[in-house]
Amino acid sequence: MALSLEHVVVLAGGVGGAKLADGLARILPPEKLTVIVNTGDDFWHYGMRICPDLDTVMYTLAGVVDPANGWGVAGDTTATLEALKRYGEDVWFRLGDQDIATHLLRSEALRNGERLTEVMLRLQNRLGVLHPILPMTDAAVETMIDTVEYGELPFQTYFVRYRWQPTMKGLRYAGSENAEASPEVTAALENADAIIIAPSNPWLSLAPMLSVKPFSELLIEKHIPRVAVSPIVAGTAVKGPAAKLMAELGYDVTARAVAEYYGALINGFVYDLQDSSLIIEDKKTFVTNTIMQNQIDREHLAQLILRWITSEVWD
Amino acid sequence: MALSLEHVVVLAGGVGGAKLADGLARILPPEKLTVIVNTGDDFWHYGMRICPDLDTVMYTLAGVVDPANGWGVAGDTTATLEALKRYGEDVWFRLGDQDIATHLLRSEALRNGERLTEVMLRLQNRLGVLHPILPMTDAAVETMIDTVEYGELPFQTYFVRYRWQPTMKGLRYAGSENAEASPEVTAALENADAIIIAPSNPWLSLAPMLSVKPFSELLIEKHIPRVAVSPIVAGTAVKGPAAKLMAELGYDVTARAVAEYYGALINGFVYDLQDSSLIIEDKKTFVTNTIMQNQIDREHLAQLILRWITSEVWD
Repeated sequence: MALSLEHVVVLAGGVGGAKLADGLARILPPEKLTVIVNTGDDFWHYGMRICPDLDTVMYTLAGVVDPANGWGVAGDTTATLEALKRYGEDVWFRLGDQDIATHLLRSEALRNGERLTEVMLRLQNRLGVLHPILPMTDAAVETMIDTVEYGELPFQTYFVRYRWQPTMKGLRYAGSENAEASPEVTAALENADAIIIAPSNPWLSLAPMLSVKPFSELLIEKHIPRVAVSPIVAGTAVKGPAAKLMAELGYDVTARAVAEYYGALINGFVYDLQDSSLIIEDKKTFVTNTIMQNQIDREHLAQLILRWITSEVWD
Repeated sequence: MALSLEHVVVLAGGVGGAKLADGLARILPPEKLTVIVNTGDDFWHYGMRICPDLDTVMYTLAGVVDPANGWGVAGDTTATLEALKRYGEDVWFRLGDQDIATHLLRSEALRNGERLTEVMLRLQNRLGVLHPILPMTDAAVETMIDTVEYGELPFQTYFVRYRWQPTMKGLRYAGSENAEASPEVTAALENADAIIIAPSNPWLSLAPMLSVKPFSELLIEKHIPRVAVSPIVAGTAVKGPAAKLMAELGYDVTARAVAEYYGALINGFVYDLQDSSLIIEDKKTFVTNTIMQNQIDREHLAQLILRWITSEVWD
């Protein structure tokens, strides 16, 4: 019996996650789709709370994202950044001028005691985004990268300052032991009739979410489709450090290793045609072209995944 | 016997004060001139500490001030402000993108416990300004304007949001009862052999300073030239609300009323040729062209004032 989807939840990191979320948002109305976003990359910088993944998803769904980078605001300038340089600052993190407006409004609201979830819902609404984009938690969870060269580094130092070149020995999600999913996230997961894990980095985007209580429990106990889209295609990452860090952490750099890493968390797996020879065990699978080069690709992939989910029987 | 000036202190508000301070800085080396600046206009805005007069003086001495406005950075853009508007913000206070770099660095340092004096000395040094520019105090002193139309307003609401159109009934300097001059300001005043009050607004720029302990005492007890330059010329203000507020507070709008307002605080008064018929009692006076339309005017006026001060005998 075909499933009718009323509440889809997509779990997303940055650029790749934003693309699939955007594809889904073009098909599903706001009341049928919730995007839950990694906040493990968030940090304070020049007194501003910066939430790279939330902003990437928000800008993407608002249609204002920079199409070349996949993050930041299209056509943004860097006058503040240049002025910081004149003050002698080592400006390793790009701050767009329009982007700074987002950071200022968010930071002021957080300092006034508003929850991140509330702030972001307000900001996204003002940009005309109606599908709820929820931070995975209102608490501070910070992805920390243990590296061979520099010891433990905060995520942005590893990722942006050192351009993910240090060798990763391990990682942890500082603060997650005290972090709880927000009421909005809990409700979305409880009401979900399908959960899609976007082709984001499992270790850097998804694992931080799963480290927050009771995220994993809410997922695993549900008899609904819980499907992940592989961020690894043909032995490499579509974008970012996923392939490099998998090798460093001792995994095979394959879609199959991603499926195994997610383990019992998922009961379905989507991977690329280029990897069609891989055998994925213990899960329903769907093989298709997963590369999203433009908006048509996004919507198409989202459509195919939704059709596949509704055509299978899940238990 | 002619006086040789080793330590000149100039007390300044915004644009007018910055111009005279700049003229003096072009004549006196850094070790012979200290600029003390009003901070009664400072406020928090979008989580940033904004210090309009300090920045105006710093940008002016750094040679980067917007020549048309007399404040802000020349050629600055407003991309962040436009983005704030897109978020539905009522952006009544102009925030330049380059200017925001100053606000961010200052705010972060203040949040980290640095004193405003220390932050500003660091920032001005990075812009190549060697003459010390000192905030009147490191404490928060907020000029509050009591208006007929709206009751009491914070200064920037009165000044920028309502463009100083409300009728002023009175004003106070909130926080001044607990504010003390910084060690740097105290030392500068104690070591001064001449104090020049720039042609800034007596009520909005100078009185806030005088409200801070032991500012007035340090001035009055000194047997040195303490000269003010009139901001009122020919019955009107060179810039800003000085004339309007004088009328509203019941003063004659004349240079003479300014001299009387300063009273025993000053023993010398500089006013404009256009007011040469005015008799100023109980003070040494110097009448000259006080309008500074360009940098030559600034330096010329500064030169004339210093020559006059050194040619008179003060007690």
